[in-house]
Amino acid sequence: MLKQSYTSELLQNVVEELASLPGVGRKSALRFALHLLKQPVENVEKFGRSVIRMRNEIRYCTNCNMISDTPVCPVCSDKKRESALVCVVESIRDVLSIENTGQYNGLYHVLGGIISPMDGVGPGDLSIDLLLSRIEKGDISEVFLALSTTMEGETTAYYLYKRLNPFGIKISTIARGVGFGDDLEYTDEVTLGRSIQNRQPFIPLNN
Amino acid sequence: MLKQSYTSELLQNVVEELASLPGVGRKSALRFALHLLKQPVENVEKFGRSVIRMRNEIRYCTNCNMISDTPVCPVCSDKKRESALVCVVESIRDVLSIENTGQYNGLYHVLGGIISPMDGVGPGDLSIDLLLSRIEKGDISEVFLALSTTMEGETTAYYLYKRLNPFGIKISTIARGVGFGDDLEYTDEVTLGRSIQNRQPFIPLNN
Repeated sequence: MLKQSYTSELLQNVVEELASLPGVGRKSALRFALHLLKQPVENVEKFGRSVIRMRNEIRYCTNCNMISDTPVCPVCSDKKRESALVCVVESIRDVLSIENTGQYNGLYHVLGGIISPMDGVGPGDLSIDLLLSRIEKGDISEVFLALSTTMEGETTAYYLYKRLNPFGIKISTIARGVGFGDDLEYTDEVTLGRSIQNRQPFIPLNN
Repeated sequence: MLKQSYTSELLQNVVEELASLPGVGRKSALRFALHLLKQPVENVEKFGRSVIRMRNEIRYCTNCNMISDTPVCPVCSDKKRESALVCVVESIRDVLSIENTGQYNGLYHVLGGIISPMDGVGPGDLSIDLLLSRIEKGDISEVFLALSTTMEGETTAYYLYKRLNPFGIKISTIARGVGFGDDLEYTDEVTLGRSIQNRQPFIPLNN
């Protein structure tokens, strides 16, 4: 019933494709499809082609495993960055989040996942060997682990610590504490406890 | 800053294209793009091609102005439908909504918009001449106006009533009343007043 009511198979196919995107239901997919129908042909062709082109032509940086249009990504080839500092993250999205803070000037290493026995993801599925080979070259003095504070994130951090420790380099992790705008009353005990242990010198914000 | 941080122009282009969809921001667009990156090449090519194909090949029914893959849409060419009853709607989406109720067995007429002087849409911009030519053929006995209860919807309904009245056919409109699941207390006065005037015989739901 629902399927036939589209009156057009061409529309139906597009609705199904768009509904396969994460968090997009059939109602939103239909709204997207009808929006595309109203756009000029050239724009829709550009839309479709850019998606296909991205999937076919995108590469992963041979150094840090970040997505890139070139063999070595713009971050790794930027001479102004501190090449002795490497931030280890789970995914491409984490790199983009950290870049948006404007607070980091080192390089990255994208694991491409996180150790999760429940999902069948072991250390061998991540780009850990690539990270170790970067460190073996001897140019890296600090590895900065920016992983989630979940069970899987902590497991991965601990595994990496064990593998990286023999190299005698500095291993750091992101600061844990109460987030800006968070209410102490509603902060969980572990976070609040840690933020008391790791209390920091007070610096006025308008300094 | 934000633009360059994508590290890939291919990704950036796709994020911009996806962010042009209605209600999709850059964060969702990035999520969609990274999801597409993880899919097999064939699937992404199917995705892109189906969008382009829809835009290039879709036609509008020469009878009712509904989108269609063929010159006459599946609804208009369905012999089991009551061809003497025509439901006039603003858009393609309204046809799909009415079809989903499973309560309507007549034909449709898609105006392709609604009279709105504020947006510069006049009667000449809508497929009203096509509707009149269908009625002139003499096969239609009832026109059922299913337009929104907005100012523009009421204006359009009144305009159509004036144009259709000389043909001496039945002109009906959708019933106004309190919606299922609505609380009487929170129903506006006009709706509640009309639903008292137009009170209907009580039919138990499990009948």
